[in-house]
Amino acid sequence: MAFDALETPFGKVDRIIGGSATYAALAASYFTQPIKQVSIVGGDFPQEEMDKLAARGVDLEGVEIVKDGKSFFWSGRYHMDMNTRDTLVTELNVLAQFDPKLPGSYTDVEYLMLGNLSPDVQISVINQLKSRPKLIIMDTMNFWMDIALDKLKEVLGMVDLLMVNDSEARQLSGEHSLVKAAMKIQAMGPKYLIIKKGEHGALLFHGRRVFSAPALPLEDVFDPTGAGDTFAGGFIGHIARTGDTSFEGMKTAIIMGSAMASFCVEKFGPNRLEELTHAEIDERVNQFADLANFKTEVVQA
Amino acid sequence: MAFDALETPFGKVDRIIGGSATYAALAASYFTQPIKQVSIVGGDFPQEEMDKLAARGVDLEGVEIVKDGKSFFWSGRYHMDMNTRDTLVTELNVLAQFDPKLPGSYTDVEYLMLGNLSPDVQISVINQLKSRPKLIIMDTMNFWMDIALDKLKEVLGMVDLLMVNDSEARQLSGEHSLVKAAMKIQAMGPKYLIIKKGEHGALLFHGRRVFSAPALPLEDVFDPTGAGDTFAGGFIGHIARTGDTSFEGMKTAIIMGSAMASFCVEKFGPNRLEELTHAEIDERVNQFADLANFKTEVVQA
Repeated sequence: MAFDALETPFGKVDRIIGGSATYAALAASYFTQPIKQVSIVGGDFPQEEMDKLAARGVDLEGVEIVKDGKSFFWSGRYHMDMNTRDTLVTELNVLAQFDPKLPGSYTDVEYLMLGNLSPDVQISVINQLKSRPKLIIMDTMNFWMDIALDKLKEVLGMVDLLMVNDSEARQLSGEHSLVKAAMKIQAMGPKYLIIKKGEHGALLFHGRRVFSAPALPLEDVFDPTGAGDTFAGGFIGHIARTGDTSFEGMKTAIIMGSAMASFCVEKFGPNRLEELTHAEIDERVNQFADLANFKTEVVQA
Repeated sequence: MAFDALETPFGKVDRIIGGSATYAALAASYFTQPIKQVSIVGGDFPQEEMDKLAARGVDLEGVEIVKDGKSFFWSGRYHMDMNTRDTLVTELNVLAQFDPKLPGSYTDVEYLMLGNLSPDVQISVINQLKSRPKLIIMDTMNFWMDIALDKLKEVLGMVDLLMVNDSEARQLSGEHSLVKAAMKIQAMGPKYLIIKKGEHGALLFHGRRVFSAPALPLEDVFDPTGAGDTFAGGFIGHIARTGDTSFEGMKTAIIMGSAMASFCVEKFGPNRLEELTHAEIDERVNQFADLANFKTEVVQA
C-alpha cells in the first residue's frame, strides 16, 4: 500500500493511492470477501482510503500503521509505447522496516498471494501460517534475482505458483525459450508458472501443459500501473471463489485476472477498480471468450 | 519461388528452395488442390523441385521459366532471439523482369492470394481475372510502403484482406495502437486485417470485431524462414476447402495457418512441409484448441 506519482502520455497525477496490495485486494474483492490484507503504511495514509477498502471487504487488521512514518512512495513516467517506463523516485519509507506479524485470524487462510517484496518477508509470512494453504502464489521481480537469488530460490521451493513477466522468466532460468524457461523454473519448486507478456497476454505452464491467454486489444492504455497486481488479484479471487485449483480452473482464473487488468488500465491508478459492477465484469469476460475461443475442424483425410 | 541461403543458431544451409509461393502452395496443398501457382524462375530451378510441387497438386502452368536467367536469391542470418535477422544478399535476378501473364485456366479462381511483391504486379494479376474472386488476400511489406505507397493504396482498395506484421501495420497507419491501426487500414479498403505478431500469435480485425490467435510456444524455433507465407497458405487453403469466408470461419482458418507455420519452423526451409500427414495436422490443431480455448463462468452477483 503506497502513494504513486504517475506520468503517462495521457496526463499526470501527483499523488494517488497505489501499491500491489491495494490493486490485488480491490480486484479480488469482486470475487471473494473478506480479503485479509497484510501491509504497512505511514500516518500519512488517508483514513478515507482505508474505509474504501474496508467497504469492499478488505480486512485491514494485518495492516501496520506507523503513525510517525511515511508510506512507500513511487514515481514513474511511461514512454509513448506504454511498455517501458522510467522510475523517477523510490522512497521505501516505512517499507524499509516491514516485518509483518500476522493476526491470529490470518493464520489459517486457504489461498495466499505473496506480493513482490523481499524473499525474507515472503518466507516470514509463510512460516507464520498454522496450516499449509491450498494454494500459495508468489510475485517477484528482477531486483530480487539480482540481490537475493538464494533466498528467492528458498521461497520458490515453498510455493505452488510463480507469476513473473517474460524477461524475468528468462533471467531466472537463463533460457531464452519460454518453454525451456518454464521447465527450469518448475524444477525450482512451483508446479505452476504464469508468464505475463503485457499487451501480448499471458502463458500458464504446468508440466508440459500450456495455456495462452490473450490480452484485450485496447485503443488506448491510459495508465498501466497496477495491471499485473490486478491480474493476480482477479486470478486468486476467482480461485478462492470456486475452490478449483485444477489446470482448467486456472485457465478461467487467468481470463478473470486479464479482464480485471483490462479495466485497471482504463483510468489512472486504481480508480476504475473501485466502481465496477459484476455485470460489467461478466460482459468483459464474454469479450475475452469472443476474442480467443474458436471452433476446430478436422482436415480432410 | 527462389533459392535461399540461411544461417540460424542451429546451423546453416547454402542453397535451399524457398520463396513465398513455394511455402504458401505447400501449406495450402494439405487443404485444397489444385493450386494455380503464378511465379517466375530461372533455368537453374531444379526440375525435381517442380515435380515435388506438381505431386502435391500445384499447377505450374503459370510459372514462367527463363531458361538463361537465374532464380531470385536471398541470403539471411537470424539472431539468437530468432525475431530479428540480417539480410546478407538479395539478388532479384529474373524477378526484376516479372510481368505475370495468367493462363486462361487461371482467370476464374475463387480465392486469390497475392504474395509480397510490387503493387504493380499485384494489380496486374487482379486485372487479368475474368471474374471477381470470392476472397482476395494480399501480403506486403515496409519496403513497398517506403517506395510505392500510392500504388500500394491502390491495391488495398481492390482486396478483401491484408496480412502484415505489427510494425508494418503501425507504419502503414501511423498509429501505435493496433486497434487504431486496424481501423485506419480497414478504411483504406480491406474489410479484414490480419496482424502477425510472430511468437505472440496473430490478430484478426473486422469492423470492431477482434480475434486473437496464439502461437504455439515452442522449445526451439529451428528456422523461421517462410513461416508467414506458410501461415497465409494454410489460412487460404482452409477457406478454399470450406468456402466459409465468415469471421467465424476465418478464426478457424487462422488456427489452421498457425498450425502449419508451427510445423514450418521445425526444420530448415520448406522441408517439414513436404512430409506432413493429415493426422499430424489434426493433432497440432487440437493442441491449439487446448492452448487457447477456455470455459467462461459468471461472476457472483
